Amino acid sequence: MKVNGRSYRTVWMDKASVFMIDQTLLPFGFGIYEARSYTDSCTAIKEMVVRGAGAIGAAAGYAMAQAILEGAWEDARKTIESTRPTAQNLFYATERVYNAALLGGPAAAVLIAQRLADEDVECCKRIGVHGAALLKDGCRIGTHCNAGWLAFVDFGTALSPVYTAHRQGKKLFVYADETRPRGQGARLTAWELAQEGIPHSIIPDNACAYFLSRGEIDIMIVGADRIARNGDVANKIGTLEKAICAKEYGVPFYVAAPTSTIDVSCSTGEDIPIEERSMDEVLYQTGLAGNRLEHVLVCSPGSPAKNPAFDVTPAKHITGIITEQGIFSPENITAALSAK
Amino acid sequence: MKVNGRSYRTVWMDKASVFMIDQTLLPFGFGIYEARSYTDSCTAIKEMVVRGAGAIGAAAGYAMAQAILEGAWEDARKTIESTRPTAQNLFYATERVYNAALLGGPAAAVLIAQRLADEDVECCKRIGVHGAALLKDGCRIGTHCNAGWLAFVDFGTALSPVYTAHRQGKKLFVYADETRPRGQGARLTAWELAQEGIPHSIIPDNACAYFLSRGEIDIMIVGADRIARNGDVANKIGTLEKAICAKEYGVPFYVAAPTSTIDVSCSTGEDIPIEERSMDEVLYQTGLAGNRLEHVLVCSPGSPAKNPAFDVTPAKHITGIITEQGIFSPENITAALSAK
Repeated sequence: MKVNGRSYRTVWMDKASVFMIDQTLLPFGFGIYEARSYTDSCTAIKEMVVRGAGAIGAAAGYAMAQAILEGAWEDARKTIESTRPTAQNLFYATERVYNAALLGGPAAAVLIAQRLADEDVECCKRIGVHGAALLKDGCRIGTHCNAGWLAFVDFGTALSPVYTAHRQGKKLFVYADETRPRGQGARLTAWELAQEGIPHSIIPDNACAYFLSRGEIDIMIVGADRIARNGDVANKIGTLEKAICAKEYGVPFYVAAPTSTIDVSCSTGEDIPIEERSMDEVLYQTGLAGNRLEHVLVCSPGSPAKNPAFDVTPAKHITGIITEQGIFSPENITAALSAK
Repeated sequence: MKVNGRSYRTVWMDKASVFMIDQTLLPFGFGIYEARSYTDSCTAIKEMVVRGAGAIGAAAGYAMAQAILEGAWEDARKTIESTRPTAQNLFYATERVYNAALLGGPAAAVLIAQRLADEDVECCKRIGVHGAALLKDGCRIGTHCNAGWLAFVDFGTALSPVYTAHRQGKKLFVYADETRPRGQGARLTAWELAQEGIPHSIIPDNACAYFLSRGEIDIMIVGADRIARNGDVANKIGTLEKAICAKEYGVPFYVAAPTSTIDVSCSTGEDIPIEERSMDEVLYQTGLAGNRLEHVLVCSPGSPAKNPAFDVTPAKHITGIITEQGIFSPENITAALSAK
């Protein structure tokens, strides 16, 4: 996608270096992080220079290829896999690159790392093509959190249909939920849309039902962190509220995600654990004061907060799930796996 | 209500001075503003040292009494009425005090100003008594924005049942929605509850449906800015989302408001105009960094925001409206007026 008019991926490899958009600087700054060694790449993954399932996977694959180029094997793999131990894609990537190296040496490792990144891009592109068919010219789209290209190598999931339809010449408008407490909608989604030149507005999370009730949102598209076999979807906190409100006003509510998000070990959403994060994410906000970042207390001093990071939206509130294999009804989502 | 263990009203008069809790300092500081003349009181009302329908009305009544004591009449009344020209209660208060002065001079003016403040307290107390009957021991209450005592002279509306039940010895827990963009829940509601020693937690607005879905909220109570004849309720943005979600999970959703909030000139909620406020309220946040206040940009620079201040919750989503006259079904809310 475009940044200052130039096309970028979130992560790429050139010779022995891995380059990443430094996401710790967004949305107030833009810079490229160069990892000259696999240990540099590990630091970048750990410190969230790169974040999001797809982007982490690609970065880990490149890091493994770097390690092989440097003559580091087992220990390097362990180091890479310890950077973000709950990121599923990371293990898949290191395994594929490592096995390729065993058979074909450093050249094969680099080739497979490159292929993994390309596969991520291709998958997101296909989600975009399937989803864009749902977006009419003049369409007003609501979204929650950031399921854009910054979380993947390119295009993203929920925003991929928007980018595709925009490039098809359709006029679109996006309502980006702020997405408290971490503000990924206000910070990352708005930033991505501005860079691509897509008209949009940030709205407080509280205002979504207001715009739905007035017929000002035609369709909602969100991403997914995990999808159960029955089509229940775990995603950023607040997704459930938006889905219930969309249904109240008869507005279609879509989830966009690669089929790798389907977790066949979860029969329903009740099997998906919900992470409770630090209350400080609610109590404090980081923002720009002049040209420096400040971390400020925005709540009554001493009061506690609860901060569940995700919620589960039951399949019955979801109109369809947009995958790289096509659009499936949530109840039939496992058919997307057999379509592979 | 209590502050640091001592009982306060938001506004009171002593000799020729009007005293107010300086709400511009909350929640990061606490101080009393002394208005020695009616022009001081006007400044305080204009600069939101005092805020909220009931508190503004009482302050305006006291200011009018101060003016009479100072020998100022017509011009003073105009000055007071121009401080917050959309505050209905302000005109009611100045008129009553002014007319009393015409008949009975300065002593009558002070007496009536005092009576107006006492009436506000009495009204909120009765809302508390009616509402407390809904709260069982061990009850977990959800609320949105701040409809507490800071907006009135004492007790408040949505929180008055909570304070009353708490003093009856019931164990309660309050989920206070943050209430973006201005954060009245996180700042004022949390502050009030902490001062009264009521267990509570701030939650992101996005998390309300999550707690409702898990059966962790037993009842929702919110305030109202205006109530239409058919029982539709205009209140802080986000109230509509909470009402829809409460209904989805079968959790009773109550509105608490004095009957003066009923606007018989509005037949339905569609007649209630919705104020669109500055986008800067969404884009920026003010908070405490160390011991100084900072105003920080929390969104992607350059992206616009929409900021509707209120939404309208249809009567069908409201279980009941708690007034000083008792609890009424929204469809029957005008009966509360004839009960007066």
